[in-house]
Amino acid sequence: MSTSILVSEVGPRDGLQSIERIMGTPEKKAWIHALFKAGLREIEVGSFVPSHVLPQMADTAELVGFARTLPGLAVAALVPNLKGAQAAVKAGAHKISIPFSCSETHSLKNVRRTHEQMIQEVQAIGAFLKTLPEAERPHLEGSLSTAFGCTMEGVVPEDKVMDLAQILIEAGCDEVGLSDTTGYANPAQVRRMIRKVHARVGADRLTGIHLHNTRGLGLANALAAIDEGLTTIDASQGGLGGCPFAPGASGNIVTEDLVFMLEAMGFSTGIDYDALMHARQLLSDALPGEPLYGMVPLAGLPKNFKAS
Amino acid sequence: MSTSILVSEVGPRDGLQSIERIMGTPEKKAWIHALFKAGLREIEVGSFVPSHVLPQMADTAELVGFARTLPGLAVAALVPNLKGAQAAVKAGAHKISIPFSCSETHSLKNVRRTHEQMIQEVQAIGAFLKTLPEAERPHLEGSLSTAFGCTMEGVVPEDKVMDLAQILIEAGCDEVGLSDTTGYANPAQVRRMIRKVHARVGADRLTGIHLHNTRGLGLANALAAIDEGLTTIDASQGGLGGCPFAPGASGNIVTEDLVFMLEAMGFSTGIDYDALMHARQLLSDALPGEPLYGMVPLAGLPKNFKAS
Repeated sequence: MSTSILVSEVGPRDGLQSIERIMGTPEKKAWIHALFKAGLREIEVGSFVPSHVLPQMADTAELVGFARTLPGLAVAALVPNLKGAQAAVKAGAHKISIPFSCSETHSLKNVRRTHEQMIQEVQAIGAFLKTLPEAERPHLEGSLSTAFGCTMEGVVPEDKVMDLAQILIEAGCDEVGLSDTTGYANPAQVRRMIRKVHARVGADRLTGIHLHNTRGLGLANALAAIDEGLTTIDASQGGLGGCPFAPGASGNIVTEDLVFMLEAMGFSTGIDYDALMHARQLLSDALPGEPLYGMVPLAGLPKNFKAS
Repeated sequence: MSTSILVSEVGPRDGLQSIERIMGTPEKKAWIHALFKAGLREIEVGSFVPSHVLPQMADTAELVGFARTLPGLAVAALVPNLKGAQAAVKAGAHKISIPFSCSETHSLKNVRRTHEQMIQEVQAIGAFLKTLPEAERPHLEGSLSTAFGCTMEGVVPEDKVMDLAQILIEAGCDEVGLSDTTGYANPAQVRRMIRKVHARVGADRLTGIHLHNTRGLGLANALAAIDEGLTTIDASQGGLGGCPFAPGASGNIVTEDLVFMLEAMGFSTGIDYDALMHARQLLSDALPGEPLYGMVPLAGLPKNFKAS
């Protein structure tokens, strides 16, 4: 088992795209900078979607450019299609993720595409990336969303997820990710699914997981993922954005609580808790009244707590 | 690993003693009855403490008598001393727990007793129980509170916890319990401590754990405990009582969320979720305005969810 875990901050993308108001670009930069100063070494700064779809993400190219100036930071962005991937490459993203919904119903509803159409899109991105010089080629992740269940289809067959994992790798993804978009996952399922994906495409092809805390199991699922050898866990500062389906419930697992759990367990995250709380303050100041989640920020660290 | 887990409901004791107002005895009975009807098979109904100390618990003897009429229910109560144990036996409790704070500072502050004085008290209870006919003898648990850390002392040495576990068994406890009174525990520590206690006093002498969700790690810690073979997990409906040290933070882990996690993982709890939500409604009606916690009650069960 790894002694260090990479906490991948997705708040500037998943958090900010989930709230209605638009955070200003200077405030986003200040927040990203504060996250970097706190020790975060992978940040998903935005999404290359048309600005009429998600005006909150219109400045993603500028944010990628800014984040690239922070030494040692892996700059990640979400892309929905080839056009987005081209924009991400132009901006200089180090890592791009394309969400692929394992539930075809969800895919049709969300991006109006069948699985076949999505596969073609990923193949097109894979082919495009191959034309680039290696130094300019970003890491491509196919993110298996609704992998643990779908609010429309209910159970998503595990065999389908495994088939899609293989298809995504064959289409040119460097890696796949498991994504509990709906907050349906449980620890036994997380363990089983990771083992199955590893068996199907190799352990080096699945190192990260994206979890939501919709039903309170987020950190238990993160623990299960770490037990199975995953080394990257997505999280969002303050659980920003909450869950649109469950008012009052947090969306992404909360960075602050995840970092506490990991450091308390003896994993090194490289993250300084006080500096992380400073970043939280910047976020809170930039979005007054926006609910932020997390239990450790309320309760504080244990007395005489020592990070790993 | 066991295929069924006993969820031990402590809300009527730990939840109700943590709020200022006093729930009426008829409402308590209706709530306990609803919990029983939902499938809970162990309920800590109250605490045999002087009523001037905790007036919320003044009707504990009556509640034990009532709960004993529910067939198949293990009726538990907390006792702080020999006098409380005698009252619990008189009332007919099946199981009594005496909290023993591993932090002597906490013990002195909380019950004004040194470890030596507490050991004598447990020995006196053990001797008293031995005088009873076996059929009338309740199961005695020594609950190792602040076992994972103390808000006053900080780190509590693990060797001290192990020594106390052995002393409690030798003093006449049938079993010890690990209790994360302060919400300091992390999953690595939970696993390590369970292994150490099992090694010291035997696996049959530690089967349960009492966890708080103060820092959001409650269910991750429960998962860790189950991984180590524990079969009883304490929880409180709605996380009733919250955490006095962290406004807005839940206290005990929430029964509703724990039951969802366990059933989703394939463990049988015997608990019906809809009936559990009915019990929550009774609780909410009896204590209007009292904050109740839990994520599954907000988000609902996954679509087409099937319990184990």
